[in-house]
Amino acid sequence: MISKRQIKDINALKLKKNRQNLGQFVVEGVKVVNEFLQGKFTVQAVYALPEYFEQHGHLIENGVQKVEINANELERISFQKSPNQVLAVCQMPDVRPQVEDKGLVVALDDVRDPGNLGTIVRMADWFGVAQVWCSEQCVDVFNPKTLQSTMGSLNRVEVVYTDLSIALRESKLPIFGAFMDGENVYSSELPKEAVLLMGNEANGVSPELESLVGERIAIPRFGELQQTESLNVAMATSILLSEFRSRSLK
Amino acid sequence: MISKRQIKDINALKLKKNRQNLGQFVVEGVKVVNEFLQGKFTVQAVYALPEYFEQHGHLIENGVQKVEINANELERISFQKSPNQVLAVCQMPDVRPQVEDKGLVVALDDVRDPGNLGTIVRMADWFGVAQVWCSEQCVDVFNPKTLQSTMGSLNRVEVVYTDLSIALRESKLPIFGAFMDGENVYSSELPKEAVLLMGNEANGVSPELESLVGERIAIPRFGELQQTESLNVAMATSILLSEFRSRSLK
Repeated sequence: MISKRQIKDINALKLKKNRQNLGQFVVEGVKVVNEFLQGKFTVQAVYALPEYFEQHGHLIENGVQKVEINANELERISFQKSPNQVLAVCQMPDVRPQVEDKGLVVALDDVRDPGNLGTIVRMADWFGVAQVWCSEQCVDVFNPKTLQSTMGSLNRVEVVYTDLSIALRESKLPIFGAFMDGENVYSSELPKEAVLLMGNEANGVSPELESLVGERIAIPRFGELQQTESLNVAMATSILLSEFRSRSLK
Repeated sequence: MISKRQIKDINALKLKKNRQNLGQFVVEGVKVVNEFLQGKFTVQAVYALPEYFEQHGHLIENGVQKVEINANELERISFQKSPNQVLAVCQMPDVRPQVEDKGLVVALDDVRDPGNLGTIVRMADWFGVAQVWCSEQCVDVFNPKTLQSTMGSLNRVEVVYTDLSIALRESKLPIFGAFMDGENVYSSELPKEAVLLMGNEANGVSPELESLVGERIAIPRFGELQQTESLNVAMATSILLSEFRSRSLK
Protein backbone atom coordinates (compact mmCIF):
# COMPACT_ATOMS: atom_id res chain seq x y z
CA MET A 1 0.00 0.00 0.00
CA ILE A 2 1.40 3.34 -1.04
CA SER A 3 0.39 6.72 0.37
CA LYS A 4 -0.78 9.72 -1.63
CA ARG A 5 2.23 11.57 -0.37
CA GLN A 6 4.59 8.90 -1.69
CA ILE A 7 2.89 8.97 -5.08
CA LYS A 8 3.30 12.72 -5.22
CA ASP A 9 6.93 12.62 -4.11
CA ILE A 10 7.87 10.05 -6.73
CA ASN A 11 6.10 11.87 -9.53
CA ALA A 12 7.91 15.06 -8.54
CA LEU A 13 11.15 13.33 -9.54
CA LYS A 14 10.16 13.58 -13.19
CA LEU A 15 11.49 17.15 -13.04
CA LYS A 16 15.20 17.88 -13.03
CA LYS A 17 14.71 20.74 -10.57
CA ASN A 18 13.21 18.40 -7.98
CA ARG A 19 15.76 15.67 -8.62
CA GLN A 20 18.54 18.14 -7.94
CA ASN A 21 16.93 19.68 -4.88
CA LEU A 22 16.27 16.28 -3.33
CA GLY A 23 19.34 14.51 -4.69
CA GLN A 24 17.16 11.62 -5.80
CA PHE A 25 16.32 9.80 -9.01
CA VAL A 26 14.14 6.91 -10.11
CA VAL A 27 15.02 3.67 -11.88
CA GLU A 28 12.57 1.04 -13.07
CA GLY A 29 12.17 -2.52 -14.21
CA VAL A 30 13.45 -5.78 -12.75
CA LYS A 31 16.76 -5.91 -14.59
CA VAL A 32 17.76 -2.30 -14.03
CA VAL A 33 16.64 -2.10 -10.40
CA ASN A 34 18.53 -5.32 -9.65
CA GLU A 35 21.68 -3.78 -11.12
CA PHE A 36 21.25 -0.68 -8.97
CA LEU A 37 20.65 -2.80 -5.85
CA GLN A 38 24.06 -4.36 -6.47
CA GLY A 39 25.73 -1.23 -7.83
CA LYS A 40 27.44 1.85 -6.48
CA PHE A 41 24.42 4.04 -5.76
CA THR A 42 22.46 4.03 -2.50
CA VAL A 43 18.93 2.75 -3.02
CA GLN A 44 16.50 4.43 -0.62
CA ALA A 45 13.20 2.75 -1.38
CA VAL A 46 11.84 -0.08 -3.49
CA TYR A 47 8.19 -0.03 -4.62
CA ALA A 48 7.25 -3.37 -6.12
CA LEU A 49 4.63 -6.01 -6.76
CA PRO A 50 4.62 -8.96 -4.32
CA GLU A 51 6.19 -11.28 -6.93
CA TYR A 52 9.20 -8.99 -7.22
CA PHE A 53 9.91 -9.14 -3.49
CA GLU A 54 9.45 -12.93 -3.54
CA GLN A 55 11.93 -13.47 -6.34
CA HIS A 56 14.46 -10.68 -5.80
CA GLY A 57 13.94 -9.58 -2.20
CA HIS A 58 17.26 -11.11 -1.16
CA LEU A 59 19.06 -8.39 -3.15
CA ILE A 60 17.61 -5.64 -0.94
CA GLU A 61 19.83 -4.61 1.97
CA ASN A 62 18.58 -3.81 5.45
CA GLY A 63 17.62 -0.20 5.83
CA VAL A 64 16.12 0.11 2.37
CA GLN A 65 12.43 0.97 2.56
CA LYS A 66 10.27 -1.74 0.96
CA VAL A 67 6.75 -0.89 -0.17
CA GLU A 68 4.54 -3.60 -1.58
CA ILE A 69 2.13 -2.23 -4.18
CA ASN A 70 -0.35 -3.55 -6.72
CA ALA A 71 -0.25 -3.12 -10.50
CA ASN A 72 -2.63 -0.18 -10.36
CA GLU A 73 -0.44 1.67 -7.87
CA LEU A 74 2.65 0.88 -9.93
CA GLU A 75 1.04 2.54 -12.93
CA ARG A 76 0.43 5.67 -10.89
CA ILE A 77 4.08 6.08 -9.96
CA SER A 78 5.79 4.65 -13.04
CA PHE A 79 7.36 6.92 -15.66
CA GLN A 80 7.12 4.13 -18.25
CA LYS A 81 4.31 3.19 -20.60
CA SER A 82 4.65 -0.46 -19.65
CA PRO A 83 5.80 -0.62 -16.02
CA ASN A 84 7.72 -3.76 -15.12
CA GLN A 85 7.11 -4.92 -11.52
CA VAL A 86 9.38 -2.49 -9.68
CA LEU A 87 10.49 1.11 -9.22
CA ALA A 88 13.32 2.27 -6.97
CA VAL A 89 14.23 5.68 -5.60
CA CYS A 90 18.02 6.13 -5.51
CA GLN A 91 20.33 8.74 -4.08
CA MET A 92 22.65 10.84 -6.19
CA PRO A 93 26.29 10.84 -5.04
CA ASP A 94 26.97 13.47 -2.35
CA VAL A 95 30.06 14.65 -4.12
CA ARG A 96 29.89 15.70 -7.76
CA PRO A 97 32.24 13.44 -9.73
CA GLN A 98 35.40 15.11 -10.99
CA VAL A 99 37.17 14.93 -14.34
CA GLU A 100 39.80 12.19 -14.51
CA ASP A 101 42.13 12.93 -17.33
CA LYS A 102 43.09 9.44 -18.48
CA GLY A 103 42.12 6.56 -20.71
CA LEU A 104 39.58 6.91 -23.48
CA VAL A 105 37.05 9.63 -22.65
CA VAL A 106 33.87 10.73 -24.44
CA ALA A 107 33.08 14.46 -24.22
CA LEU A 108 29.62 15.68 -25.21
CA ASP A 109 29.02 19.27 -26.26
CA ASP A 110 25.39 20.12 -25.65
CA VAL A 111 23.77 16.74 -26.40
CA ARG A 112 20.09 17.41 -25.73
CA ASP A 113 18.22 14.21 -26.49
CA PRO A 114 17.76 11.92 -23.45
CA GLY A 115 17.80 8.78 -25.59
CA ASN A 116 21.03 9.81 -27.29
CA LEU A 117 22.80 10.45 -23.97
CA GLY A 118 21.50 7.14 -22.61
CA THR A 119 22.71 5.20 -25.62
CA ILE A 120 26.12 6.89 -25.49
CA VAL A 121 26.57 6.00 -21.80
CA ARG A 122 25.53 2.44 -22.61
CA MET A 123 28.08 2.23 -25.44
CA ALA A 124 30.75 3.79 -23.23
CA ASP A 125 30.08 0.94 -20.81
CA TRP A 126 30.41 -1.67 -23.55
CA PHE A 127 33.70 -0.20 -24.74
CA GLY A 128 35.14 0.24 -21.26
CA VAL A 129 35.09 4.05 -21.20
CA ALA A 130 35.25 5.13 -17.55
CA GLN A 131 34.10 8.75 -17.93
CA VAL A 132 31.74 10.75 -20.11
CA TRP A 133 32.27 14.50 -19.81
CA CYS A 134 29.12 16.52 -20.46
CA SER A 135 28.86 20.26 -21.03
CA GLU A 136 26.49 21.85 -18.54
CA GLN A 137 23.93 22.28 -21.36
CA CYS A 138 23.67 18.52 -21.95
CA VAL A 139 20.47 16.77 -20.92
CA ASP A 140 20.40 15.48 -17.33
CA VAL A 141 21.63 11.90 -17.11
CA PHE A 142 19.13 11.21 -14.31
CA ASN A 143 16.28 12.03 -16.69
CA PRO A 144 13.95 8.96 -16.72
CA LYS A 145 14.30 8.50 -20.48
CA THR A 146 18.07 8.61 -20.26
CA LEU A 147 18.17 6.17 -17.38
CA GLN A 148 15.92 3.83 -19.31
CA SER A 149 18.34 3.64 -22.23
CA THR A 150 21.51 3.48 -20.09
CA MET A 151 20.14 0.34 -18.42
CA GLY A 152 22.49 -0.20 -15.46
CA SER A 153 25.54 1.37 -17.10
CA LEU A 154 25.64 4.33 -14.71
CA ASN A 155 26.96 1.95 -12.11
CA ARG A 156 30.16 1.63 -14.12
CA VAL A 157 30.43 4.77 -16.27
CA GLU A 158 30.86 8.11 -14.52
CA VAL A 159 29.07 11.04 -16.11
CA VAL A 160 30.73 14.34 -15.20
CA TYR A 161 29.01 17.66 -15.87
CA THR A 162 31.65 20.30 -16.31
CA ASP A 163 32.78 23.36 -18.24
CA LEU A 164 34.10 21.54 -21.30
CA SER A 165 36.22 24.42 -22.50
CA ILE A 166 38.19 24.29 -19.25
CA ALA A 167 38.31 20.47 -19.16
CA LEU A 168 39.57 20.25 -22.74
CA ARG A 169 42.06 23.07 -22.32
CA GLU A 170 43.52 21.45 -19.21
CA SER A 171 43.50 17.92 -20.60
CA LYS A 172 46.81 16.28 -21.45
CA LEU A 173 45.05 13.79 -23.74
CA PRO A 174 44.94 14.29 -27.52
CA ILE A 175 41.54 15.69 -28.48
CA PHE A 176 39.67 14.12 -31.40
CA GLY A 177 36.48 15.77 -32.61
CA ALA A 178 33.76 14.42 -34.92
CA PHE A 179 33.11 16.72 -37.89
CA MET A 180 31.30 16.15 -41.18
CA ASP A 181 34.42 17.29 -43.04
CA GLY A 182 36.89 15.47 -40.81
CA GLU A 183 39.48 12.93 -41.92
CA ASN A 184 38.32 9.43 -42.73
CA VAL A 185 38.43 7.68 -39.35
CA TYR A 186 39.16 4.31 -40.97
CA SER A 187 42.56 5.54 -42.10
CA SER A 188 43.30 7.87 -39.15
CA GLU A 189 45.79 6.93 -36.51
CA LEU A 190 43.93 6.54 -33.24
CA PRO A 191 45.79 6.38 -29.91
CA LYS A 192 44.70 4.23 -26.99
CA GLU A 193 44.08 7.22 -24.77
CA ALA A 194 42.19 10.26 -26.07
CA VAL A 195 39.20 12.51 -25.67
CA LEU A 196 36.51 11.92 -28.31
CA LEU A 197 34.44 15.10 -28.60
CA MET A 198 30.93 14.84 -30.07
CA GLY A 199 28.70 17.81 -30.87
CA ASN A 200 25.09 18.85 -30.50
CA GLU A 201 22.42 17.02 -32.54
CA ALA A 202 21.65 19.98 -34.78
CA ASN A 203 24.71 22.22 -34.64
CA GLY A 204 27.64 19.90 -34.07
CA VAL A 205 30.62 21.03 -32.01
CA SER A 206 30.52 24.69 -30.97
CA PRO A 207 33.18 27.03 -32.44
CA GLU A 208 34.73 27.62 -29.01
CA LEU A 209 35.41 23.93 -28.46
CA GLU A 210 36.29 23.33 -32.10
CA SER A 211 39.39 25.46 -31.63
CA LEU A 212 40.61 23.02 -28.96
CA VAL A 213 40.35 19.96 -31.21
CA GLY A 214 43.62 18.49 -32.44
CA GLU A 215 42.29 15.91 -34.91
CA ARG A 216 39.06 16.19 -36.88
CA ILE A 217 37.60 12.81 -37.81
CA ALA A 218 34.55 11.61 -39.75
CA ILE A 219 32.78 8.38 -40.64
CA PRO A 220 32.74 8.15 -44.42
CA ARG A 221 29.40 7.91 -46.18
CA PHE A 222 28.99 5.07 -48.68
CA GLY A 223 25.45 5.53 -49.90
CA GLU A 224 23.78 8.24 -51.93
CA LEU A 225 22.65 10.22 -48.89
CA GLN A 226 22.66 13.94 -49.42
CA GLN A 227 25.81 15.71 -48.34
CA THR A 228 23.89 17.69 -45.76
CA GLU A 229 22.77 14.61 -43.90
CA SER A 230 24.65 13.55 -40.82
CA LEU A 231 24.63 10.49 -38.63
CA ASN A 232 22.75 10.51 -35.36
CA VAL A 233 25.21 11.42 -32.58
CA ALA A 234 24.66 8.18 -30.65
CA MET A 235 25.29 6.01 -33.71
CA ALA A 236 28.35 8.06 -34.65
CA THR A 237 29.76 7.79 -31.12
CA SER A 238 29.27 4.00 -31.15
CA ILE A 239 31.09 3.58 -34.43
CA LEU A 240 33.94 5.89 -33.40
CA LEU A 241 34.38 4.15 -30.04
CA SER A 242 34.46 0.85 -31.88
CA GLU A 243 37.22 2.24 -34.13
CA PHE A 244 39.28 3.47 -31.18
CA ARG A 245 39.01 0.15 -29.39
CA SER A 246 39.54 -2.07 -32.41
CA ARG A 247 42.92 -0.43 -33.14
CA SER A 248 44.21 -1.41 -29.74
CA LEU A 249 43.47 -5.05 -30.60
CA LYS A 250 45.24 -5.08 -33.95
CA MET B 1 -9.69 23.01 -44.08
CA ILE B 2 -9.79 19.30 -43.51
CA SER B 3 -12.92 17.13 -43.41
CA LYS B 4 -13.88 14.74 -40.62
CA ARG B 5 -13.64 11.93 -43.12
CA GLN B 6 -10.04 12.87 -44.00
CA ILE B 7 -9.08 13.00 -40.31
CA LYS B 8 -10.56 9.55 -39.80
CA ASP B 9 -8.88 8.11 -42.90
CA ILE B 10 -5.46 9.41 -41.90
CA ASN B 11 -5.74 8.18 -38.32
CA ALA B 12 -6.74 4.75 -39.65
CA LEU B 13 -3.24 4.49 -41.16
CA LYS B 14 -1.79 4.09 -37.69
CA LEU B 15 -2.74 0.42 -38.00
CA LYS B 16 -0.75 -1.99 -40.15
CA LYS B 17 -3.91 -3.76 -41.25
CA ASN B 18 -5.33 -0.56 -42.72
CA ARG B 19 -2.03 0.46 -44.28
CA GLN B 20 -1.87 -2.87 -46.06
CA ASN B 21 -5.50 -2.86 -47.18
CA LEU B 22 -5.22 0.65 -48.55
CA GLY B 23 -1.61 0.44 -49.70
CA GLN B 24 -0.92 3.78 -48.02
CA PHE B 25 1.38 5.16 -45.36
CA VAL B 26 2.06 8.49 -43.68
CA VAL B 27 5.26 10.53 -43.42
CA GLU B 28 5.69 13.74 -41.46
CA GLY B 29 7.85 16.79 -40.96
CA VAL B 30 9.34 19.24 -43.44
CA LYS B 31 12.61 17.44 -44.09
CA VAL B 32 11.17 13.95 -44.48
CA VAL B 33 8.14 14.99 -46.56
CA ASN B 34 10.42 16.98 -48.87
CA GLU B 35 12.56 13.89 -49.39
CA PHE B 36 9.49 11.81 -50.24
CA LEU B 37 8.23 14.49 -52.65
CA GLN B 38 11.50 14.11 -54.53
CA GLY B 39 11.90 10.36 -53.94
CA LYS B 40 10.67 7.14 -55.50
CA PHE B 41 7.27 6.83 -53.81
CA THR B 42 4.05 8.37 -55.14
CA VAL B 43 2.76 11.07 -52.80
CA GLN B 44 -1.04 11.21 -52.89
CA ALA B 45 -1.86 14.10 -50.57
CA VAL B 46 -0.06 16.79 -48.60
CA TYR B 47 -1.71 18.29 -45.49
CA ALA B 48 0.22 21.34 -44.35
CA LEU B 49 0.23 24.74 -42.73
CA PRO B 50 0.15 27.73 -45.13
CA GLU B 51 3.83 28.49 -44.49
CA TYR B 52 4.82 25.04 -45.69
CA PHE B 53 3.06 25.51 -49.02
CA GLU B 54 4.62 28.97 -49.37
CA GLN B 55 8.15 27.73 -48.82
CA HIS B 56 8.09 24.24 -50.29
CA GLY B 57 5.02 24.19 -52.54
CA HIS B 58 7.22 24.11 -55.66
CA LEU B 59 8.26 20.55 -54.74
CA ILE B 60 4.68 19.29 -55.08
CA GLU B 61 3.83 17.88 -58.50
CA ASN B 62 0.53 18.42 -60.27
CA GLY B 63 -2.05 15.84 -59.36
CA VAL B 64 -1.02 15.65 -55.70
CA GLN B 65 -3.88 16.70 -53.45
CA LYS B 66 -2.97 19.76 -51.37
CA VAL B 67 -4.91 20.51 -48.20
CA GLU B 68 -4.16 23.66 -46.24
CA ILE B 69 -4.74 23.16 -42.53
CA ASN B 70 -4.12 25.01 -39.28
CA ALA B 71 -1.96 23.91 -36.33
CA ASN B 72 -4.96 22.54 -34.49
CA GLU B 73 -5.98 20.34 -37.41
CA LEU B 74 -2.40 19.18 -37.86
CA GLU B 75 -2.40 17.99 -34.27
CA ARG B 76 -5.52 15.97 -34.92
CA ILE B 77 -3.97 14.04 -37.81
CA SER B 78 -0.32 13.88 -36.70
CA PHE B 79 1.18 10.70 -35.26
CA GLN B 80 3.94 12.76 -33.60
CA LYS B 81 4.03 14.48 -30.23
CA SER B 82 5.43 17.64 -31.80
CA PRO B 83 4.02 17.87 -35.33
CA ASN B 84 6.18 19.82 -37.76
CA GLN B 85 4.18 21.76 -40.37
CA VAL B 86 3.31 18.93 -42.75
CA LEU B 87 1.99 15.38 -43.15
CA ALA B 88 1.86 13.45 -46.41
CA VAL B 89 -0.02 10.32 -47.43
CA CYS B 90 2.07 8.14 -49.73
CA GLN B 91 1.41 5.05 -51.79
CA MET B 92 3.16 1.74 -51.20
CA PRO B 93 4.73 0.23 -54.33
CA ASP B 94 2.26 -1.87 -56.36
CA VAL B 95 4.73 -4.68 -56.65
CA ARG B 96 6.36 -6.19 -53.56
CA PRO B 97 10.11 -5.72 -53.86
CA GLN B 98 12.09 -8.91 -54.52
CA VAL B 99 15.32 -10.19 -53.05
CA GLU B 100 18.39 -9.12 -55.00
CA ASP B 101 21.24 -11.39 -54.12
CA LYS B 102 24.22 -9.06 -54.43
CA GLY B 103 26.36 -6.52 -52.64
CA LEU B 104 26.26 -6.11 -48.89
CA VAL B 105 22.86 -7.09 -47.49
CA VAL B 106 21.42 -6.83 -43.97
CA ALA B 107 19.00 -9.62 -43.00
CA LEU B 108 16.84 -9.20 -39.90
CA ASP B 109 15.39 -12.18 -38.09
CA ASP B 110 12.31 -11.07 -36.20
CA VAL B 111 13.36 -7.52 -35.22
CA ARG B 112 10.31 -6.22 -33.39
CA ASP B 113 11.11 -2.71 -32.23
CA PRO B 114 10.06 0.03 -34.69
CA GLY B 115 12.89 2.33 -33.64
CA ASN B 116 15.48 -0.42 -34.11
CA LEU B 117 14.28 -1.21 -37.63
CA GLY B 118 14.20 2.49 -38.49
CA THR B 119 17.73 3.04 -37.23
CA ILE B 120 19.00 -0.01 -39.11
CA VAL B 121 17.47 1.21 -42.39
CA ARG B 122 19.00 4.61 -41.78
CA MET B 123 22.44 3.07 -41.18
CA ALA B 124 22.03 0.84 -44.24
CA ASP B 125 21.49 4.04 -46.22
CA TRP B 126 24.62 5.64 -44.76
CA PHE B 127 26.72 2.60 -45.59
CA GLY B 128 25.30 2.15 -49.09
CA VAL B 129 23.42 -1.09 -48.40
CA ALA B 130 20.77 -1.45 -51.12
CA GLN B 131 18.54 -4.06 -49.49
CA VAL B 132 17.43 -5.05 -46.01
CA TRP B 133 15.79 -8.48 -45.91
CA CYS B 134 13.23 -8.83 -43.13
CA SER B 135 11.62 -12.01 -41.86
CA GLU B 136 7.83 -11.80 -42.06
CA GLN B 137 7.72 -11.45 -38.24
CA CYS B 138 9.71 -8.21 -38.28
CA VAL B 139 7.90 -4.98 -37.44
CA ASP B 140 6.29 -3.19 -40.40
CA VAL B 141 8.67 -0.67 -41.96
CA PHE B 142 5.70 1.63 -42.72
CA ASN B 143 4.95 1.88 -38.99
CA PRO B 144 4.98 5.62 -38.09
CA LYS B 145 7.72 5.16 -35.48
CA THR B 146 9.92 3.30 -37.94
CA LEU B 147 9.39 5.88 -40.66
CA GLN B 148 10.27 8.61 -38.19
CA SER B 149 13.66 7.09 -37.47
CA THR B 150 14.43 6.10 -41.07
CA MET B 151 14.06 9.73 -42.08
CA GLY B 152 13.99 9.63 -45.91
CA SER B 153 16.16 6.52 -46.22
CA LEU B 154 13.36 4.35 -47.60
CA ASN B 155 13.74 6.25 -50.85
CA ARG B 156 17.14 4.63 -51.29
CA VAL B 157 17.12 1.41 -49.23
CA GLU B 158 14.73 -1.35 -50.26
CA VAL B 159 13.16 -3.30 -47.41
CA VAL B 160 12.09 -6.76 -48.55
CA TYR B 161 9.82 -8.92 -46.38
CA THR B 162 10.47 -12.54 -47.20
CA ASP B 163 10.90 -16.05 -45.86
CA LEU B 164 14.47 -15.65 -44.62
CA SER B 165 15.16 -19.38 -44.46
CA ILE B 166 14.49 -19.61 -48.21
CA ALA B 167 16.33 -16.37 -49.03
CA LEU B 168 19.41 -17.43 -47.06
CA ARG B 169 19.39 -20.98 -48.40
CA GLU B 170 19.18 -19.72 -51.99
CA SER B 171 21.71 -16.92 -51.53
CA LYS B 172 25.10 -17.24 -53.20
CA LEU B 173 26.58 -14.68 -50.80
CA PRO B 174 28.58 -15.72 -47.73
CA ILE B 175 26.35 -15.48 -44.65
CA PHE B 176 27.70 -13.76 -41.54
CA GLY B 177 25.63 -13.86 -38.36
CA ALA B 178 25.97 -11.82 -35.16
CA PHE B 179 26.26 -14.02 -32.06
CA MET B 180 27.39 -13.28 -28.51
CA ASP B 181 29.96 -16.08 -28.79
CA GLY B 182 31.03 -15.30 -32.35
CA GLU B 183 34.57 -14.53 -33.52
CA ASN B 184 36.00 -11.12 -32.82
CA VAL B 185 34.84 -9.05 -35.80
CA TYR B 186 37.90 -6.81 -35.59
CA SER B 187 40.14 -9.69 -36.56
CA SER B 188 37.71 -11.52 -38.88
CA GLU B 189 38.11 -11.42 -42.63
CA LEU B 190 35.12 -9.62 -44.08
CA PRO B 191 34.34 -9.78 -47.80
CA LYS B 192 32.90 -6.86 -49.79
CA GLU B 193 29.72 -8.75 -50.58
CA ALA B 194 27.89 -10.69 -47.89
CA VAL B 195 24.68 -11.13 -45.95
CA LEU B 196 24.88 -9.81 -42.39
CA LEU B 197 22.22 -11.61 -40.34
CA MET B 198 21.02 -9.97 -37.10
CA GLY B 199 18.67 -11.59 -34.60
CA ASN B 200 15.67 -10.70 -32.50
CA GLU B 201 16.10 -8.21 -29.61
CA ALA B 202 15.56 -10.81 -26.88
CA ASN B 203 16.33 -14.16 -28.46
CA GLY B 204 18.96 -13.46 -31.11
CA VAL B 205 19.05 -15.50 -34.31
CA SER B 206 16.59 -18.41 -34.40
CA PRO B 207 18.04 -21.95 -34.48
CA GLU B 208 16.65 -22.60 -37.97
CA LEU B 209 18.53 -19.65 -39.46
CA GLU B 210 21.59 -20.20 -37.30
CA SER B 211 22.24 -23.44 -39.18
CA LEU B 212 22.54 -21.42 -42.41
CA VAL B 213 25.22 -19.07 -41.05
CA GLY B 214 28.74 -19.61 -42.36
CA GLU B 215 30.65 -17.19 -40.11
CA ARG B 216 29.67 -16.24 -36.57
CA ILE B 217 30.92 -12.80 -35.56
CA ALA B 218 30.75 -10.65 -32.41
CA ILE B 219 31.73 -7.18 -31.23
CA PRO B 220 34.11 -7.65 -28.32
CA ARG B 221 33.20 -6.14 -24.97
CA PHE B 222 35.83 -3.96 -23.30
CA GLY B 223 34.10 -2.90 -20.11
CA GLU B 224 32.96 -4.79 -17.06
CA LEU B 225 29.47 -5.40 -18.36
CA GLN B 226 28.02 -8.70 -17.27
CA GLN B 227 28.48 -11.55 -19.71
CA THR B 228 24.76 -11.87 -20.14
CA GLU B 229 24.41 -8.35 -21.47
CA SER B 230 24.22 -7.80 -25.19
CA LEU B 231 24.34 -4.76 -27.41
CA ASN B 232 21.14 -3.29 -28.79
CA VAL B 233 20.59 -4.75 -32.28
CA ALA B 234 20.60 -1.36 -34.00
CA MET B 235 23.91 -0.34 -32.42
CA ALA B 236 25.43 -3.73 -33.19
CA THR B 237 24.30 -3.54 -36.82
CA SER B 238 25.82 -0.05 -37.18
CA ILE B 239 29.18 -1.16 -35.84
CA LEU B 240 29.24 -4.32 -37.95
CA LEU B 241 28.29 -2.42 -41.13
CA SER B 242 31.05 0.04 -40.34
CA GLU B 243 33.49 -2.88 -40.05
CA PHE B 244 32.40 -4.40 -43.36
CA ARG B 245 32.75 -1.07 -45.18
CA SER B 246 35.98 0.04 -43.58
CA ARG B 247 37.77 -3.12 -44.79
CA SER B 248 36.99 -2.28 -48.38
CA LEU B 249 38.76 1.07 -47.94
CA LYS B 250 41.95 -0.34 -46.45
